[in-house]
Amino acid sequence: VRQGFPEVIYCSNKPDDYLVSIYCKMFEENGEVFGTRASIHQYEIVKKKLPQVQYDEVSQILKIEKNDKKLTGRIAVCSAGTADIPVAEEAAQTAEFFGTYVDRIYDVGVSGLHRLLSKMEVIQKANCVVAVAGMEGALASVLGGLVKNPIIAVPTSVGYGASMGGLSALLTMINSCANGVTVVNIDNGFGAGYVATQINRLAGGK
Amino acid sequence: VRQGFPEVIYCSNKPDDYLVSIYCKMFEENGEVFGTRASIHQYEIVKKKLPQVQYDEVSQILKIEKNDKKLTGRIAVCSAGTADIPVAEEAAQTAEFFGTYVDRIYDVGVSGLHRLLSKMEVIQKANCVVAVAGMEGALASVLGGLVKNPIIAVPTSVGYGASMGGLSALLTMINSCANGVTVVNIDNGFGAGYVATQINRLAGGK
Amino acid sequence: VRQGFPEVIYCSNKPDDYLVSIYCKMFEENGEVFGTRASIHQYEIVKKKLPQVQYDEVSQILKIEKNDKKLTGRIAVCSAGTADIPVAEEAAQTAEFFGTYVDRIYDVGVSGLHRLLSKMEVIQKANCVVAVAGMEGALASVLGGLVKNPIIAVPTSVGYGASMGGLSALLTMINSCANGVTVVNIDNGFGAGYVATQINRLAGGK
Amino acid sequence: VRQGFPEVIYCSNKPDDYLVSIYCKMFEENGEVFGTRASIHQYEIVKKKLPQVQYDEVSQILKIEKNDKKLTGRIAVCSAGTADIPVAEEAAQTAEFFGTYVDRIYDVGVSGLHRLLSKMEVIQKANCVVAVAGMEGALASVLGGLVKNPIIAVPTSVGYGASMGGLSALLTMINSCANGVTVVNIDNGFGAGYVATQINRLAGGK
Amino acid sequence: VRQGFPEVIYCSNKPDDYLVSIYCKMFEENGEVFGTRASIHQYEIVKKKLPQVQYDEVSQILKIEKNDKKLTGRIAVCSAGTADIPVAEEAAQTAEFFGTYVDRIYDVGVSGLHRLLSKMEVIQKANCVVAVAGMEGALASVLGGLVKNPIIAVPTSVGYGASMGGLSALLTMINSCANGVTVVNIDNGFGAGYVATQINRLAGGK
Amino acid sequence: VRQGFPEVIYCSNKPDDYLVSIYCKMFEENGEVFGTRASIHQYEIVKKKLPQVQYDEVSQILKIEKNDKKLTGRIAVCSAGTADIPVAEEAAQTAEFFGTYVDRIYDVGVSGLHRLLSKMEVIQKANCVVAVAGMEGALASVLGGLVKNPIIAVPTSVGYGASMGGLSALLTMINSCANGVTVVNIDNGFGAGYVATQINRLAGGK
Amino acid sequence: VRQGFPEVIYCSNKPDDYLVSIYCKMFEENGEVFGTRASIHQYEIVKKKLPQVQYDEVSQILKIEKNDKKLTGRIAVCSAGTADIPVAEEAAQTAEFFGTYVDRIYDVGVSGLHRLLSKMEVIQKANCVVAVAGMEGALASVLGGLVKNPIIAVPTSVGYGASMGGLSALLTMINSCANGVTVVNIDNGFGAGYVATQINRLAGGK
Amino acid sequence: VRQGFPEVIYCSNKPDDYLVSIYCKMFEENGEVFGTRASIHQYEIVKKKLPQVQYDEVSQILKIEKNDKKLTGRIAVCSAGTADIPVAEEAAQTAEFFGTYVDRIYDVGVSGLHRLLSKMEVIQKANCVVAVAGMEGALASVLGGLVKNPIIAVPTSVGYGASMGGLSALLTMINSCANGVTVVNIDNGFGAGYVATQINRLAGGK
Ligand SMILES: Nc1ncnc2c1ncn2[C@@H]1O[C@H](COP(=O)(O)O)[C@@H](O)[C@H]1O
Ligand SMILES: Nc1ncnc2c1ncn2[C@@H]1O[C@H](COP(=O)(O)O)[C@@H](O)[C@H]1O
Ligand SMILES: Nc1ncnc2c1ncn2[C@@H]1O[C@H](COP(=O)(O)O)[C@@H](O)[C@H]1O
Ligand SMILES: Nc1ncnc2c1ncn2[C@@H]1O[C@H](COP(=O)(O)O)[C@@H](O)[C@H]1O
Ligand SMILES: [Mg+2]
Ligand SMILES: [Mg+2]
Ligand SMILES: [Mg+2]
Ligand SMILES: [Mg+2]
Ligand SMILES: [Mg+2]
Ligand SMILES: [Mg+2]
Ligand SMILES: [Mg+2]
Ligand SMILES: [Mg+2]
Repeated sequence: VRQGFPEVIYCSNKPDDYLVSIYCKMFEENGEVFGTRASIHQYEIVKKKLPQVQYDEVSQILKIEKNDKKLTGRIAVCSAGTADIPVAEEAAQTAEFFGTYVDRIYDVGVSGLHRLLSKMEVIQKANCVVAVAGMEGALASVLGGLVKNPIIAVPTSVGYGASMGGLSALLTMINSCANGVTVVNIDNGFGAGYVATQINRLAGGK
Repeated sequence: VRQGFPEVIYCSNKPDDYLVSIYCKMFEENGEVFGTRASIHQYEIVKKKLPQVQYDEVSQILKIEKNDKKLTGRIAVCSAGTADIPVAEEAAQTAEFFGTYVDRIYDVGVSGLHRLLSKMEVIQKANCVVAVAGMEGALASVLGGLVKNPIIAVPTSVGYGASMGGLSALLTMINSCANGVTVVNIDNGFGAGYVATQINRLAGGK
Repeated sequence: VRQGFPEVIYCSNKPDDYLVSIYCKMFEENGEVFGTRASIHQYEIVKKKLPQVQYDEVSQILKIEKNDKKLTGRIAVCSAGTADIPVAEEAAQTAEFFGTYVDRIYDVGVSGLHRLLSKMEVIQKANCVVAVAGMEGALASVLGGLVKNPIIAVPTSVGYGASMGGLSALLTMINSCANGVTVVNIDNGFGAGYVATQINRLAGGK
Repeated sequence: VRQGFPEVIYCSNKPDDYLVSIYCKMFEENGEVFGTRASIHQYEIVKKKLPQVQYDEVSQILKIEKNDKKLTGRIAVCSAGTADIPVAEEAAQTAEFFGTYVDRIYDVGVSGLHRLLSKMEVIQKANCVVAVAGMEGALASVLGGLVKNPIIAVPTSVGYGASMGGLSALLTMINSCANGVTVVNIDNGFGAGYVATQINRLAGGK
Repeated sequence: VRQGFPEVIYCSNKPDDYLVSIYCKMFEENGEVFGTRASIHQYEIVKKKLPQVQYDEVSQILKIEKNDKKLTGRIAVCSAGTADIPVAEEAAQTAEFFGTYVDRIYDVGVSGLHRLLSKMEVIQKANCVVAVAGMEGALASVLGGLVKNPIIAVPTSVGYGASMGGLSALLTMINSCANGVTVVNIDNGFGAGYVATQINRLAGGK
Repeated sequence: VRQGFPEVIYCSNKPDDYLVSIYCKMFEENGEVFGTRASIHQYEIVKKKLPQVQYDEVSQILKIEKNDKKLTGRIAVCSAGTADIPVAEEAAQTAEFFGTYVDRIYDVGVSGLHRLLSKMEVIQKANCVVAVAGMEGALASVLGGLVKNPIIAVPTSVGYGASMGGLSALLTMINSCANGVTVVNIDNGFGAGYVATQINRLAGGK
Repeated sequence: VRQGFPEVIYCSNKPDDYLVSIYCKMFEENGEVFGTRASIHQYEIVKKKLPQVQYDEVSQILKIEKNDKKLTGRIAVCSAGTADIPVAEEAAQTAEFFGTYVDRIYDVGVSGLHRLLSKMEVIQKANCVVAVAGMEGALASVLGGLVKNPIIAVPTSVGYGASMGGLSALLTMINSCANGVTVVNIDNGFGAGYVATQINRLAGGK
Repeated sequence: VRQGFPEVIYCSNKPDDYLVSIYCKMFEENGEVFGTRASIHQYEIVKKKLPQVQYDEVSQILKIEKNDKKLTGRIAVCSAGTADIPVAEEAAQTAEFFGTYVDRIYDVGVSGLHRLLSKMEVIQKANCVVAVAGMEGALASVLGGLVKNPIIAVPTSVGYGASMGGLSALLTMINSCANGVTVVNIDNGFGAGYVATQINRLAGGK
C-alpha cells in the first residue's frame, strides 16, 4: 500500500507463473487483489489457485475484492461511444476498488449533444469527471466548458484511418481550450481512475 | 471564369510587378477583381494603379467588387475563437464575392456551449455551414450533430504547443464521428467559401 | 431517422448479441436496416434471425433494403485502382441506400489519364463526385480541375511503404490546389456517401 | 466569473484597441483584471488607460490585482531548469490570482537529483504539485513516485534538436508510469495553475 | 571536375570571405564557376572581385559561364505553379550549365489539365522530364503515365497548412503509382538537373 | 505494352479468380506474363491453369518468361544486408524481364566498407546502379560518390525500432548529399528495376 | 573476429538452412557461437546439429560458449520495469560473451526512486552503465546525474498508447539534459552490450 | 566540479545580468570558465567585466581557460561538411577544455569517400571518435565499420527539405547497423565532447 493506494497489477504480458504467484501473494497480504489488462487465459490460470477471483471481459479487470467496501465521495465517468466502454470501465472499476463512488454516463459523444446535455445535472455533482473518447476526442472540451471541477481526459485507440491509434484524440484533448482539462495516456483508464480517486479523496470523499 | 466562378488571385509571395499587372488585367476583363492573402504593401502598390481597390486587414482580401451584386441562398460561417476570425472572414467574403448570402456566427467555440446553442436557429437555416476552429477543433463535430446540411470544416493554425500549426485541429476534424463533415486545408478559408458556394448554388441559391 | 437519414450501424467490433439485437430492432422499426464494416461471421449470426439479410463481401455492407426504393438525382463515385473498390462501393451503396442515383467510374487512376478523360462526360453530370484513391491520391486534384460541382475526396489505406496507411493520400488530398475538393477520413466511404447524398438532395435529387 | 473563476485574458495577438477595451471593461466590472502572454508593447498601451497595471516580464503576466487577496490551501510549483521558470511563474501567479497559496521549488531537474530530494518535505505538503520541465521532461515521473497527491505535468518548449518544440517532453509525461500524473499542453502554465486551484479548492483551500 | 561534372558551389550560409575565395579559385581553374542558393548580398561581394559574375534572382544562381557552351540532347523541366518556378529554374539552369538542352514548360499543374495536355508533344520528346510541384505534388504521377522516359520528381516547399514544408508533396511523389518516377529532396532543383543531365548524356546528348 | 514495357501484375491482395484470369489473358496475348508480390497460394492457383508458371520465393515473383530473351546493356543491383535481398531480387528480375543485363552485388553494406570497395570496378561499368538498403540506408550516398551514372535508391522496410518500417532509410536517401541519387518508395524493387531499364535503354542497351 | 569482437548472428528472419549452416561454420571456426533474436523454432533446428547449443527464452539468445571464459572489468545493466528485462538480458549476456563482468540491477524505474537510490553504490562502480527503459524512459537521465562514467541508454518498445513502439522513450533519452548519456536504437540490447564492452576494455577490463 | 568535470554554462537565452554574474562567479571560484551557445552580444557584455574572455564565432564558445592545460589521451572529431564545423568545434573545444587531446578531421563526408579513407590512420588511433554530420548522416555508420573504439554520433541540423532540422540524420545514426555507434541530440557537440572525454579518461588519458 504505497501512498494509501493498494498496489495494482498490470497483467499484460506477465508470464503465467509469475502472475499467479503475485496474485496469491497480494491476496494473502491484503485480503484483496486487483489487476488490469488481464486475458481470459490469465483468468483461468489464476482461478485454479484462487477460485473466488472475478473477471470482467469488458474492462479486462481480474480481481478479488473485499465484501464490505464502502464507496464515498462522487466522480463521474463519461464516455463517447460504445467502443470506448472498456476503457471507461477500467477507469470506473479502478476508482471503485479504491473506494470511490462512481456515476457512469456512457454513449454521450458530442455528435449527439442532446444526450449529453440531458445528463449534465448528475455530471455536475462529481468532484472529478473522467472523459473517455476516441476518434476526434471532443467530449473533454465540451465537458470542460460545462463543469466546474477537474476533467481527466482519456483518449482511446478507438477509430481508424487518421485516428492513428489514439494520437489524434490525445492531441485534441491536449489542445483543449476549455479550462480544467488534463490528459492521461491513450487507453489509460487505470490512470484516470487513480487520479480521480486522489481528487475525490482531497474533496473529502474518504 | 472557369466553371462559373471568376478567377481569384492568391497574392502571397507574388512579385510586385506581376501582381499589379494581373490585378489590372483582370479588372479590365471582368470589371471586378478579387485576391486573398494580400499584404498591406501589396494593397499600396495596387492602389497606385487601381485607386478604387479595397483592402480588409482582417481577412487580407484585396478586391474591387461590382456594386450591384445580389447575394442569394444562405450559408453560415461559424468560428470558435477571436483568433479564428481572419480565416472565417476569408471564407465569408469569398462566398459573398461569388454571390452567396452569408450569416456570420463568431466566437461560438465548444468550451462555451450555450453561446453556440443560442445561435442554432439561424445556423440550421443554412444550405451549408463553414466551421472554422483551431486548437482542438471540436466545433465541426458538435455542429455536425446539430445540422442536417453539409459542414465544411476549416482547421486553423491558431494555437500553440501541441497544436502543431493546425495539424491537431485538422486531425480532430478528419476523425469527426459526426455525419456530414468534410475538411479543407489548414487556414483555407477561401477553399471553404468556394465549396460552400458550389453547394449553395446546387441548392438553388443562384 | 435523424435529419432525414436512417441510422446506419458501424458493425466493426460490435459484440455478437448486441449486433443481432440492433439489427432486429432497427428492421422492426424501419422495415430496413443498413450496416457497414460487417464481417462474414456477423453476416452469419444476423442471418439466423433475419434470413433476408444481404451481405456484400466487397463493400462489407450488411443490409435489408426496401424493394421499392427510387434513386433520384445523380452522383458519381470514381476510384483510382482495383484495390480501392471496397471503399468506393461503401460510398456508392451508402448513397444508394439513402436514395441517391450513383454512376460508378472505377479504375481511372491518374497514371492512366486517358481512361479518366474518356469518362468525363458522365462524371460532369453528377451533382457531386466522390473520388476514392490510395497511394498518392492525385485523382481528387485532377477531377477538381475538370468538374464544376463539389468533389468529396476519400483517401484509402491502399499502398505500402511511405503510404503510411493512407496518411500520404490524405495529405495529398488536403493540399489539393484544385477548387471544390473537401476530404473525409481514410477509408471513410460511408462518410463520403452521406455527404454526397446531402448535396444531391440540396440539388433537388430528393 | 464562470464557475467561480474570474475570466482571464489570453493577450497573445489580440489587436491593441480590443485588448485595451477588455482590460478596461473587466477592471470596471471586477475591480481586478488578469492576462497572460502579454508583450511589453501591450503593457505600455494598457498602462496609458490603467496606470496601476503591473507587468512581469518573466511570466508575461499583465494584471491589476485586489490588495486584500488571501491565499489559502497549498500547492507546489516545481521546475526543472532555469529556462522553464517563465512557464512555472505563469502557473504560480495564475494560481495565486485565483486565491491559492503557492510554494515555488525551482531548478530541481532530475539530472541533479539531490537538490530535488532535499525539497521533498515541502513538496509533499501540497494538495497538488505542478511539474514544469522541458527537454526530456522526466521531473513529473520522479515526482509522481514521491508524492501522494496529483501531479499536473507541464511540458515546456525549452530545448533544441529532437525536443521538437516540447513534443518530446509532452510524450515523456504522457507515458509516465508513475501514478497520479496528468498532462496539459506545452507551455500551458495557465492551465496547470487553473487545475491546481480546482483541486486545492476541493481539498478545502477556499 | 569529378565524374565529368564541374564542381558546383552551394552558397547558402557560406561565410563571405570563404565564398569569394572559392569563386575566384574555381573561376581561375575552370574559366567558369557556378553556385546555387546565393543571396543578393553574396552576389554583391563576389561581383567586387569578379565583375563579370551574373546573378538570377529567381533561381538564386550566381555564375560565370563560358560563352561558347553548346547544349545537346533534350530534357524538359515542367512545373505546376508560379511559385514553383524558382526551383524549376534551379533545375533548368543547372542542366544547361552542364551542357544539356532544356525545354521549359511551366504552370501546367494538374488542376488545369488541358494546359498540360496541350504541351505533351514537346514533353514526350525529352530524354528525361523534371517535374517540379509543391502542394499536393500530383504532377509527377500524371506525367509518369504520359511519357516513356524517366521522370525526376522535385517536391517543393510551396504551400501552407498541411503541406508541411514540402513533406506532403514528397510523400505524394514517393507513393506515385506511375512507372518511371523517382524523387529527390524538397526544393532540390540542383539534384534534379544533375540527374537529368546524367540520363541525357547516357542517351547520347553529350 | 504501354511505352514499350509489357504490363506487370501487382499480385498482392488480388482476388483468386481475378488473378488467374489476368494471368491467362496476358499469357495468351503476349506469350509471357510477369507478376510481383505473389504468395505461394497464388502460385498454386495460377499453376493449375498455367503449369509452366515459375515462382521465386525470395523475390515473390510469379512469371512465365519467353525462352529466347536477350539481355542487353548493363545495370548493377547492390544491396546492403542479407535481409534486403528480396527487394534487390524484385529489382533485378524486373529489369531482366524487361531485357536488361544485371550484375548483382549483394551484402555490401557500408559498415563493411572493404567488401563494397572491392566490387567497385564492376559497379562502375553499369549504366545505372540500384542501391537497396534498410536500417540507416547509407549505401546510396556512398555509391553516389563513387559512380558517375545515376543511382536509384530503394529504401527497405528491414530494421526495427526507429527504422519505422523503412521511413528512416527513405529519409536518409532523400537527404543524400551525393550527386546522382534519386529515390523510390520503400521496398519498391519493381519501380527501381523499371527506371533502371528506362535509363539502360536510353544508354543504348536496347 | 573483426576488431577483437567475435561475429554475432542476428537470427531474426534468417532462413532455417542458412541459420543452421552459419551456426555450424562459426562454431567450427571459433569453438563458440552467439546469436540474438532467435526463436524457439530456431533453437530446435540448430540443436539437431549442435546438441550443446543453449537457448534463453527471456533474452532470445542462442549460443555455445567456451567454458573457461573470464569476465573482467565491470559494467552495470539497469532496467526500469519487469517488461524491460528481455532487452536488459540481451545487453548483459552480449557483454558477458565478449568477456565483460556485469552487475544486473533490475526493476529500478524512476517512479520508485528509493529502490534505485539503494543500489547506487554498486552502480557507481561500473566503467559504463547500460540504462534500459520503455514508457517514459526517464531512468537514463536520473542515472546520468548520479554516475560519473558513460551511460548507454536503451529505449524499449515496452508501453502502449503514445509510447509509439519506443519512439517516446528514445526521444526522452536523446533529449536528456544529464551529461554522459548516449543512445542506441529501440530494443537494441546487443548494441548497448557491445559499446559497454568497448568502453570497459578501454578502462582496462580486458 | 561535479564528477571531475568543471561546470559548463549553456549561454543560450540566459538574461544578460545573470550571465555576467555566473561568468564572474565561476571564474573567481575556478580560475577558468567555459560557456557554449554564446552570442556576440553576450561576449561583449561579459568582456566588460572579464576583459580576458575569449570568443570563438564558429563554435560560439565563450571562455577563459587556464594557460597550463595539458591535453592527454587522444580522441578524433570528424565532420562531414563545411556547415557541420560549428558543431564539430563545440565538441572538440569542449573536450579540450576538459583536458582531452583532439585530432580534427573535417570535410570527410561519405560522398567523397577517398578523403575519409586517406585519414583513417589517424582516426584509428583515437580512444573515441566523434562523428558529426547533417543531411543523411551516413558518416557514423561508415566510421563504425572502420574503427574499433566507440563512435559518438552527433546529428546536425544542417540540411533542408526532408532533413527536418536534423531528425533525418538522427534517425540514420540511431538505425546504424555498424557496431559501436551511440547517438546524442541534434547539434549537441557539447554532449559528445563530454562523453568522449569520459571514455578517454577511462582509457587512461587523464
Ligand atoms: N492499465 C494500466 N495502465 C497503466 N498502468 C497500470 C495499469 N494497471 C496498473 N498499472 C500500474 O502498473 C503498476 C504495476 O506495474 P508492474 O510492476 O509491471 O505490475 C501498478 O502499481 C500501477 O501503477
Ligand atoms: N542547391 C543544391 N542542393 C543540394 N546540393 C547542392 C546544391 N548546390 C550544390 N550542391 C552540391 O553541394 C556540393 C558543394 O557543397 P559544398 O562543398 O558545401 O559547397 C556540390 O558539389 C553539389 O554536389
Ligand atoms: N540484437 C541485435 N541487434 C542489432 N544488431 C545485432 C544484433 N545481434 C547481432 N547484431 C549485429 O548483426 C551482425 C550480423 O548481421 P547478419 O550478417 O545479418 O547476420 C553482427 O555482427 C552484429 O553486428
Ligand atoms: N551546448 C550544450 N548543449 C547541451 N547541454 C549543455 C551545453 N552547454 C552546457 N550544457 C549543460 O548545461 C548545464 C548548464 O545548464 P544551466 O544550468 O541551464 O546553465 C551544464 O552543466 C552542461 O551540463
Ligand atoms: Mg471547466
Ligand atoms: Mg449533420
Ligand atoms: Mg472544380
Ligand atoms: Mg504519486
Ligand atoms: Mg512513364
Ligand atoms: Mg555520383
Ligand atoms: Mg553523469
Ligand atoms: Mg566499430
